[in-house]
Amino acid sequence: MTQRIVVLGGGFGGMYAARALRRTLGRKAEIEVINAENYFVFQPLLPEVGAGSITPAHAVTPLRFILKGISVRKAVVDSVDFDRKVVIVFQGIQRRPTEVPYDHLVIALGQGTDFSRMPGLEEHALKMKTLEDARRLRAHVIEQLEHAQVTALPDTKRGALTFTVVGGGFSGVETVGEMKEMIDRSLPFYPKIKPSEVRVLLIEFAPRILGEMPDELADYASEHLQKHDIELMLKTGVKSCTHRQLVTTDGEVINTRTVVATIGNAPLPVVTRMGLPMDKGRIVVERSLQVQGRPDVWALGDCALIPLKEGASARNDFAPPTAQFAVREAKRLAKNVAAAIKGKPTQPFAYESRGALASLGAKRGVADVMGRHFTGFPAWFIWRSYYLALLPGWGTRINVMVNWTLDLLGARSLVQLRSHPKPPMRYIYYRAGDRIYEAGDRSDGFYTVISGAVEMERTDPETGARTTRTIGPGGHFGERMILGATRRHTTVHAAEDTKVLVMNREEFLMLFEGLDPFRDYFRPYMEKHGVKLPGHADRTEG
Amino acid sequence: MTQRIVVLGGGFGGMYAARALRRTLGRKAEIEVINAENYFVFQPLLPEVGAGSITPAHAVTPLRFILKGISVRKAVVDSVDFDRKVVIVFQGIQRRPTEVPYDHLVIALGQGTDFSRMPGLEEHALKMKTLEDARRLRAHVIEQLEHAQVTALPDTKRGALTFTVVGGGFSGVETVGEMKEMIDRSLPFYPKIKPSEVRVLLIEFAPRILGEMPDELADYASEHLQKHDIELMLKTGVKSCTHRQLVTTDGEVINTRTVVATIGNAPLPVVTRMGLPMDKGRIVVERSLQVQGRPDVWALGDCALIPLKEGASARNDFAPPTAQFAVREAKRLAKNVAAAIKGKPTQPFAYESRGALASLGAKRGVADVMGRHFTGFPAWFIWRSYYLALLPGWGTRINVMVNWTLDLLGARSLVQLRSHPKPPMRYIYYRAGDRIYEAGDRSDGFYTVISGAVEMERTDPETGARTTRTIGPGGHFGERMILGATRRHTTVHAAEDTKVLVMNREEFLMLFEGLDPFRDYFRPYMEKHGVKLPGHADRTEG
Repeated sequence: MTQRIVVLGGGFGGMYAARALRRTLGRKAEIEVINAENYFVFQPLLPEVGAGSITPAHAVTPLRFILKGISVRKAVVDSVDFDRKVVIVFQGIQRRPTEVPYDHLVIALGQGTDFSRMPGLEEHALKMKTLEDARRLRAHVIEQLEHAQVTALPDTKRGALTFTVVGGGFSGVETVGEMKEMIDRSLPFYPKIKPSEVRVLLIEFAPRILGEMPDELADYASEHLQKHDIELMLKTGVKSCTHRQLVTTDGEVINTRTVVATIGNAPLPVVTRMGLPMDKGRIVVERSLQVQGRPDVWALGDCALIPLKEGASARNDFAPPTAQFAVREAKRLAKNVAAAIKGKPTQPFAYESRGALASLGAKRGVADVMGRHFTGFPAWFIWRSYYLALLPGWGTRINVMVNWTLDLLGARSLVQLRSHPKPPMRYIYYRAGDRIYEAGDRSDGFYTVISGAVEMERTDPETGARTTRTIGPGGHFGERMILGATRRHTTVHAAEDTKVLVMNREEFLMLFEGLDPFRDYFRPYMEKHGVKLPGHADRTEG
Repeated sequence: MTQRIVVLGGGFGGMYAARALRRTLGRKAEIEVINAENYFVFQPLLPEVGAGSITPAHAVTPLRFILKGISVRKAVVDSVDFDRKVVIVFQGIQRRPTEVPYDHLVIALGQGTDFSRMPGLEEHALKMKTLEDARRLRAHVIEQLEHAQVTALPDTKRGALTFTVVGGGFSGVETVGEMKEMIDRSLPFYPKIKPSEVRVLLIEFAPRILGEMPDELADYASEHLQKHDIELMLKTGVKSCTHRQLVTTDGEVINTRTVVATIGNAPLPVVTRMGLPMDKGRIVVERSLQVQGRPDVWALGDCALIPLKEGASARNDFAPPTAQFAVREAKRLAKNVAAAIKGKPTQPFAYESRGALASLGAKRGVADVMGRHFTGFPAWFIWRSYYLALLPGWGTRINVMVNWTLDLLGARSLVQLRSHPKPPMRYIYYRAGDRIYEAGDRSDGFYTVISGAVEMERTDPETGARTTRTIGPGGHFGERMILGATRRHTTVHAAEDTKVLVMNREEFLMLFEGLDPFRDYFRPYMEKHGVKLPGHADRTEG
C-alpha cells in the first residue's frame, strides 16, 4: 500500500527531508510538503537581502522547482489530529478548513519569536526571520537616510541615524556588518549626512559575541566590527523600546528609530497547540527523530530538541539549530522513516559539526572549518562559496553569482521598495515625557489610552491662555478628524509610560460610517460642535 | 540671485524636466525634485514586472543616481500656497508639515484613477500604475495558480483560473500578453491545472484594441492575442465587480478572482485641491507650458493639458500622455523657464509623434516607427531596444539586459513574494445570492452591513431545525469571535446586492480591549453567554 508522508514546513529541515524521502523511498511513497509560502528561503542570505547586495527573489527558490516528484501545498497549518492522522490546513483565501491525511508526519516548522518580556519590542522592533523581514529592514534603513537628509530637526536626525541590532549571534553579527556596509556605500548620495553622524550599535547580553565560535575568531570579529565604527555593547540587554527609543537593562536610553531584534526564539503557536511533549521550547524527540510516544510523527530542524547522545541534558548534548545540522538530520530521518515502514529498526541521529562561518560585511568574515581558523577575506570567500554550494539548484546559484558580481562592480541601488505599510490599527508605547503629537501636526490618527496617562495641552488662539487635561485608561483623543480637521489643535505628551491604541484616519471614518454604537458614542461630541452627521444612520432615518 | 525651482513628481515628466533644467541653467539655479518614492519608475516595464520577467528593482532607478547636482526630497506633497510661493509637504514619518519655498514651480505629478462609477472596482480590482501594483499582480496570479492546484472545489478552481484585464490600450494589451505568457510558462509546475482550464480575457469598451495605433497593427495584435488563447471582449464595459465576479455592461457575469483595471484615469486629489484651471481632468496650460494666469507655475506630462496648436479643442490637438511626449515637453519647459528668468519670450511646445510601440508577450510586438509598420519578433525587438535606450543610466540598462537574458534562458521563478496583505478593515461588495461564509469556516472577521441585506441561517446541532434571520443596514454579524470561537456556526448569504464593512479578528479584539463604547455595546451579548469580559475595564475596576 502506498504510504502518504506529509512534511510540515519547507525550510532547510522540511525541504531536505522531502528530497531525501523521495530518494530513499522512490515511487513507493506519496510525499507532500505543506508550506505557508511557495518558496524555500535561504536563511543565511537574509542579511544580504536586508542590505540589498542581493535582491529578495535571489535568496529564495520556488519549492516546485526543487521538489520534483513531490506534491507542494501552499497552505497554513492550523492543527493536527493525531488520532485521525490528518493535518488541518487553510489554503489560499479559502476559509473552509481542508484535511490532509498522512501515514507518517514530519514536523519541520522552525521557530518563531517571543518578545513578551520586553515591552514595545514586538510592536517596534524589526526581525530577521523571513524574507519579508529582510525586505522591510532594507526599506526602513533607506527611509531613515532619506529622512535624515531632509529633516531640519537635530533630534530627529540623530534618531534616524542611530541603528541598533540586538543579539550578537550569527544573525545579529551578519546583519550589523551588512547594514553598516550598505550605509557606508549609500552616504555619498546623501550630501547632508556626515559619516560621523551615523551610529551603529550591536547589543549582546553575553560578555562576547558569536558564542558558538572559538574565542580567537570571535575576537577577530569584534575588532573588525569596531574598526568599521560599529559600537559593541556587551553584557547589556534590552528592557523596552518605543518607536523612537531603546532602553537597555542598564537604564541607558538610546535615541534610535531602528531596532533589529535577532533574539527571542520561541516555539510557533501552531507547534505549541499540537500538545506534543516539549522542552526548552522545542519538540522532544528520540534519537531516531521520532516524537516521544508517537512512532508515526517525526520532527527535525529548529523546532525539534534532538539528543546527540543517550541521557542528553546539557545544551551541547542536543543538535544546534543550524542549516548544517538540519540537512544531516533530513538524511537520517528519511532512512528511519523507510525502516519504520518496513518494520525494521531505526538508527540514532549522530553528527559532529564541521565548523562555523560568519560574514562580517565589507568582504570580511570568520571561518572555523574542521578546527582550522580563517579570518578576513579568505574566510569571507569560504563563506560565500559554501553557501553558494548549499543553494539548491543551478538556476538560483547562477542568479546569486551574477548579482553578487554586479554588486561588487557598481553602486548599490538605493531604491526603497516599499514594504508593508504600518497596520491601520496598532499599539504604540511611549515613555513618560515623549511627545505624541503637537499643535499643527497632521491629524493622522485616533488614540485610545490602554494603560498609563497622557497630558493634553491647548493654547487658546485668541487669549493665548494655556489649558491642560489628563487622559487616563479608557480615555481617547484625536477625534477632531470627524469634524474634518486635518491639523492638530492640541499638543499631547505621555505623562507616564503609556500604551495607546492608534487607529488611522481612514479606518476611524469607516467605523464611524458603518458601526452604530461607534457613531452613537461620538454623536454628542458632534452635536456640540454643530456638525451634521454623515453615514448610513442618515440614510435609514431619511 | 539664485532661483529656486521646485519640481513636483519624479516620473518621466518631472525627472527629465529636472535634468533639462540643470543642463540649461547650470549652477545659476537651485533645483529640487519632490517625490513620494525615492526612485524613478520606468512605467513601460511594469507589465514585465507584473509577469516576473524582470524583478521590481530593475524597473526603477534611485532618483539620487540620475539627478546629479539636483536635490531630492522624499516627501508627500500636501498642498501649494501659490501666494506665498511655498509647497507644503510631509516627509518621512514626520507629522509636522514642512514648507518648501520656490521661485518657479513645475507640476509633474501624473494621473490617478477613479473607479467611482463602477462599484467594487476600487476595492477588488488590481491596478497597473505603480511598482507596487505590478508586484501585487504577480503575487496575485501565482496565488491563484497555487490555489487552483490544491482546491477540490470546481467553482473555486474556475474562478482562480479566470484572469480578466479591463482596457485595451497599451497598458492593458501588454499586461494581458505578459500575464498569459507567465501563466503558460508556469503551468508545467502545476500538474493539476490543464491548460484548457485557464481563461484569460481582455475587455475593451471600444470596437477595437490599441486605439492609438494604426488599424493594421491593431489587427495584428488582436490576432496574435487570440492565437495565444486570449479572449477579446470588445464593445464591452464593466458594470461592477466583487472579489469573485465581474459583471459586464451586457449583464454577463464572469466568475473571476482576478480583475486588472487599466482604465479610469483621473486627476490626483492633490492636483484637484490646488484649484488651478482644469479641463478633461488635467491642468490647463499655455503652449509655453505655463499654467493659465500663473507665469511662475508650470505643468507637463500626464497631469497637464498641453495644446499642440492655437485654438486646440479636439482630443488630437493636445499632447498625448506618453513618455515620448513627456521627455520632449521637459526640454521645452527647461528652455522656457530659463527664458522667463531672463525676462525673454518663451516658445510654444511643438512635437510630432515618431510612432508607437507595444509588446504582446511571447516575444512578439507591434511597432509604428515614423510611419513604417513592424510586427512580430522584429517589433518586439525594437520595443525592447527602444526602452532599453530610454532607461536612465548604464547601471540600470545593464541590470535589465542581464535579467532579460537570464529570463530567456531559464525557467521563470514562481516565487510568490508577498505583497501588502489585505487591509484589516475594508469594504466588500457581494451580489445577491453570494455566500459570505458558511458554517465550519474559519472565523476571520466581524461584518457590518452598510447597504443591502444578508440572510443568516443556523442549523441546530441537536434538533436539526433551521432558523433564518435577515440583517439590514447598521446590523452586524460574526461577533462570536469575542467568545473565542474560531469556526463559524452559521451560514450567511447576501439577500440582495450588499456592501459590508469587514474588520479582521485581531483588530476587532483590539477595539474590544481598548475602546469603552465598543465594549459596552457588546457587553450584554457577552453576559448573555456567561463570558467574563477581558480588557482594561477589568483592570481599572479590579
